[in-house]
Amino acid sequence: MLTFAQFGAGRIGAIHAGNLAASGRAKLKHVVDVNAAAAAALAGRHGARVSDTAGALTDPEVGAVIIASSTDTHAELVIAAAQHGKAIFCEKPIDLALPRVDACLDEVAKASAPMLVGFNRRFDPSFAELHRRVAAGAIGAVEQVFITSRDPAPPPISYIKVSGGLFRDMTIHDFDMARWMLGEEPHEVFAYGANLVDQAIGAAGDIDGAMVLLRTPSGRMAHINNSRRASYGYDQRVEVFGSGGRLLAGNRTPTTVELADGQAVAADKPLHFFLERYADAYRIELAAFIDAVLNKTPMPVGAEDGRRALVLAEAANASLSSGKPVRL
Amino acid sequence: MLTFAQFGAGRIGAIHAGNLAASGRAKLKHVVDVNAAAAAALAGRHGARVSDTAGALTDPEVGAVIIASSTDTHAELVIAAAQHGKAIFCEKPIDLALPRVDACLDEVAKASAPMLVGFNRRFDPSFAELHRRVAAGAIGAVEQVFITSRDPAPPPISYIKVSGGLFRDMTIHDFDMARWMLGEEPHEVFAYGANLVDQAIGAAGDIDGAMVLLRTPSGRMAHINNSRRASYGYDQRVEVFGSGGRLLAGNRTPTTVELADGQAVAADKPLHFFLERYADAYRIELAAFIDAVLNKTPMPVGAEDGRRALVLAEAANASLSSGKPVRL
Amino acid sequence: MLTFAQFGAGRIGAIHAGNLAASGRAKLKHVVDVNAAAAAALAGRHGARVSDTAGALTDPEVGAVIIASSTDTHAELVIAAAQHGKAIFCEKPIDLALPRVDACLDEVAKASAPMLVGFNRRFDPSFAELHRRVAAGAIGAVEQVFITSRDPAPPPISYIKVSGGLFRDMTIHDFDMARWMLGEEPHEVFAYGANLVDQAIGAAGDIDGAMVLLRTPSGRMAHINNSRRASYGYDQRVEVFGSGGRLLAGNRTPTTVELADGQAVAADKPLHFFLERYADAYRIELAAFIDAVLNKTPMPVGAEDGRRALVLAEAANASLSSGKPVRL
Amino acid sequence: MLTFAQFGAGRIGAIHAGNLAASGRAKLKHVVDVNAAAAAALAGRHGARVSDTAGALTDPEVGAVIIASSTDTHAELVIAAAQHGKAIFCEKPIDLALPRVDACLDEVAKASAPMLVGFNRRFDPSFAELHRRVAAGAIGAVEQVFITSRDPAPPPISYIKVSGGLFRDMTIHDFDMARWMLGEEPHEVFAYGANLVDQAIGAAGDIDGAMVLLRTPSGRMAHINNSRRASYGYDQRVEVFGSGGRLLAGNRTPTTVELADGQAVAADKPLHFFLERYADAYRIELAAFIDAVLNKTPMPVGAEDGRRALVLAEAANASLSSGKPVRL
Repeated sequence: MLTFAQFGAGRIGAIHAGNLAASGRAKLKHVVDVNAAAAAALAGRHGARVSDTAGALTDPEVGAVIIASSTDTHAELVIAAAQHGKAIFCEKPIDLALPRVDACLDEVAKASAPMLVGFNRRFDPSFAELHRRVAAGAIGAVEQVFITSRDPAPPPISYIKVSGGLFRDMTIHDFDMARWMLGEEPHEVFAYGANLVDQAIGAAGDIDGAMVLLRTPSGRMAHINNSRRASYGYDQRVEVFGSGGRLLAGNRTPTTVELADGQAVAADKPLHFFLERYADAYRIELAAFIDAVLNKTPMPVGAEDGRRALVLAEAANASLSSGKPVRL
Repeated sequence: MLTFAQFGAGRIGAIHAGNLAASGRAKLKHVVDVNAAAAAALAGRHGARVSDTAGALTDPEVGAVIIASSTDTHAELVIAAAQHGKAIFCEKPIDLALPRVDACLDEVAKASAPMLVGFNRRFDPSFAELHRRVAAGAIGAVEQVFITSRDPAPPPISYIKVSGGLFRDMTIHDFDMARWMLGEEPHEVFAYGANLVDQAIGAAGDIDGAMVLLRTPSGRMAHINNSRRASYGYDQRVEVFGSGGRLLAGNRTPTTVELADGQAVAADKPLHFFLERYADAYRIELAAFIDAVLNKTPMPVGAEDGRRALVLAEAANASLSSGKPVRL
Repeated sequence: MLTFAQFGAGRIGAIHAGNLAASGRAKLKHVVDVNAAAAAALAGRHGARVSDTAGALTDPEVGAVIIASSTDTHAELVIAAAQHGKAIFCEKPIDLALPRVDACLDEVAKASAPMLVGFNRRFDPSFAELHRRVAAGAIGAVEQVFITSRDPAPPPISYIKVSGGLFRDMTIHDFDMARWMLGEEPHEVFAYGANLVDQAIGAAGDIDGAMVLLRTPSGRMAHINNSRRASYGYDQRVEVFGSGGRLLAGNRTPTTVELADGQAVAADKPLHFFLERYADAYRIELAAFIDAVLNKTPMPVGAEDGRRALVLAEAANASLSSGKPVRL
Repeated sequence: MLTFAQFGAGRIGAIHAGNLAASGRAKLKHVVDVNAAAAAALAGRHGARVSDTAGALTDPEVGAVIIASSTDTHAELVIAAAQHGKAIFCEKPIDLALPRVDACLDEVAKASAPMLVGFNRRFDPSFAELHRRVAAGAIGAVEQVFITSRDPAPPPISYIKVSGGLFRDMTIHDFDMARWMLGEEPHEVFAYGANLVDQAIGAAGDIDGAMVLLRTPSGRMAHINNSRRASYGYDQRVEVFGSGGRLLAGNRTPTTVELADGQAVAADKPLHFFLERYADAYRIELAAFIDAVLNKTPMPVGAEDGRRALVLAEAANASLSSGKPVRL
């Protein structure tokens, strides 16, 4: 049994707390949130107590923390949790600024704190299986990777303004996926962005669509495409080409129902958004974290992975500004 | 909050108990099983107590029972639960003999006990959505129904011997599905059976493959095909043809991974068996039962449905014996 | 080079004449049709002459005939062609009455005339590949066969009246397919029919929908479903289950375009009707005929196949009348 | 009836000659090829004569030419044909050097010669239907285009050496497709290339894999990925994202057969290579050319399209050399 304190009682926090309760191997003891009502509701649902940060972190029974609060609080909480010797499950991103991420990583390293960064897609059964097969050599040597990653609809402008921009907010997942699938660190990034979806996003200084290319020293390449709008649902696909074939992981649908009528043969749209598509991934991700803590094995995706994805996002921003590829 | 007593702590019992715990609206208080160790383990996992039948049924706090014990105990437990005024969730079949089913139904009717018979497939998201669309007129008037229902591998011969035979054990789900999709009661059944999978099944007096036709008074028809062996996994498909089109609900797969290589473009086999394929269905089924009990609304699939499916199974057996269609 | 006389200058005749011209190994010399204008048009298009039956059959240069005239003329033409020593490509059915078919077969046997009966679906690339794999043991021993065969819309009532009925006109193709896939002759037939599509068809004494079961001595089974109406296009599918797996041959579509929008992910309906779906099959069928004639090898589908499919159709009619299975 | 002279009696020449013969609206009169045997064989098959260039072009009966000879002869033949007032069907590319292409275009313009450049993929039924729907507004405003274009296996090194390089030889088709689908001229190109397939290709100064991004002034983007090797067959897919949805045109397969066994559910690989995949496209392309000539309507894809695709290929080469995006 692993005892948790959780920071953040919002939408994602509720998912983690639910998965924690259902895991049978963990117990939620403290819930911390600036929104007292949300904290009380979530704590009530899982037999936990509402605490403040200090109360949660100084409790010696607490072995692990889930950091699912707003992005600007992550770094501080990671550092504090590391200093208190807790295992850390931190939602992505660690921080929007690389120097603060580096500060976190230093503290985590100093404390030898086990830390998982919430790149939930690595735990999606389809993407995980694809990676397993790539790693097992099913398609020989990897040559090219394609990632399609499109949200059903843009978030509110208020969110856009604090998001850190498309590359650090949304593409960061795809940078992580690209690194994972390429099997070799990219050393150059080129990015195109556009503002075709919502002019208010452009007015807020952000883009709402992008195409990115990555290149590794040995000549492997990856392509990422993003949009803040996919009218047909959440579009999340990964395709990897190797010397011996191609592996593809496509979308999932609510049902397998297919209607054939005078117009067409029509199947379901993909599952609506990340909460639906990645429900399994969130559950498996938390289980993997608990496994690694209890068994003292390495985290399947660690703090350094969080850092490297951010480095790629910053390079993409630099490429967007300069109009040129950026060498890392 | 609805308090449950559960009979049966085996594989299916564990699933219902887990769904009950996760529902947030129900509490498991009593677990009853002839296997004391299994009862204790399940009770322990969910904070329930091990009880005997009388203890469970006379507890006034208990509002509902789950009957997931062996088939030969169902009828007696249904009757006892009805007499104690409990709501009843009974795994299929109610009994293998029609007279005993009738006795159960009488007692349930006398007690006005709410009762759901565990035709879990009605709650499978794909089949349920297919039925919703049929009912909403998406394909006009129903004309023909096709049901493919094939198990990955035969059960042990010991199970075959007490199963009541293929039609009452396996096809009974398909008879229920056919009735539900046809929207009209079949009045004639014709059945072919064969023993091509395992000679030991034939030696035990059963068949291991079948094709069945059903006909309704207005001329609607249904086809069911079964096999005790599908080397590629659990094959569960329903297709409905109407005046305006066709609706199909296919299999689900563990992942969406597709491998293209020098041989073929290969996708996943269907989910392995009913525990995997119908995991969602079991959860939704129990939620529907709790809804109906708490809201005092009609059961989505009731005792009479259990009876009618058995009538069709017996007619299929009669057709198999006589070599002729059997009129109901 | 094989020189042909062709009887029938209608829709199917035009297809055969076109394939013949494109084959590069055959020449059309005579076109015979009661419709003089149609004969002249087709002859003109292919550099042939309009002839009468005697003129065509007594031409010693003619090595082979295509019989694509109306069904009631087939038997007489087959007999005459056999007597003149021509190789015979005869559209299905040879005749609607078994005694006349037997008379034809006697004459063909007496003359040792090579004869192909136009079960074009055996030459459909997908069905042919499925059969090749079944024959090669890809799914072990065959156990069950499923054939879905549904026309987009009913023919005119005038055609229904001379068609010989659904089983002899439409299902006959499926009987042939079932025999071919089962790999063993069925010895019993059971048929349900209905008249749900168009009351005028019922008034003309025919059915417009059916479900048929076939059984072989060893216990293999086949199911056929038919409808005179499939609002979503021509539905032609074959599925074979064996001890080691399942083989399926589905529909073909005009394009691979898929539209994902706010409603659904929508693909093409199947190709409209037999002229579109079986365009390749007609071409390959004629080439196989020419091959067999020129190389003096056995016909891939012969007169006896035409006879056996008719026997099954008559048995289905008898089952429909009696309401009982019919043993052959 | 349109009378043709054809230059080139190789593999592609044979296809065009066959389609011409089957069109029913055209006649092949002259075949010109440096390989006298090939010319004689092709001429013989279609009742044409072997001629030299002057003989073919000075024949007043000849209304149109097909230029399917080696790339280095195209420009000269285009100019000569234009000067003789012939309609011109020219295989891509017009030439590998832009100045020579410009010289051709001048001459063609001066002569007002109708000219089609053989971007056969525009006539592929799936791509053509996709474009029709984009143009009809099925997905609103176009935002992003994705083109996957991968050959089954590399050509011989001898061909690589005279091919003009990957971008001018292979990607040129994709540049045309991108322009067509974007509906707006790209004004910037960025390209990555690699040599991962065959070192001999690198030694010959070429790349064998690439990823290219294109951008239009309004912010539309296109991605192209290429490889000289796709072990699973010819991979030709186009995907267009718009404000209202997504359109996809996938690969075609030889059959629809699907095998489900203990390993997987396995479907056909895509059709092997361009001769198989684009057989329909070649036929439709020639028919469109004949239509445009006989009806004096504009060519569906003209000389300027050939030029613009080459401009993009040269920009891609420049980007590859400089490592930077190239503005047109």
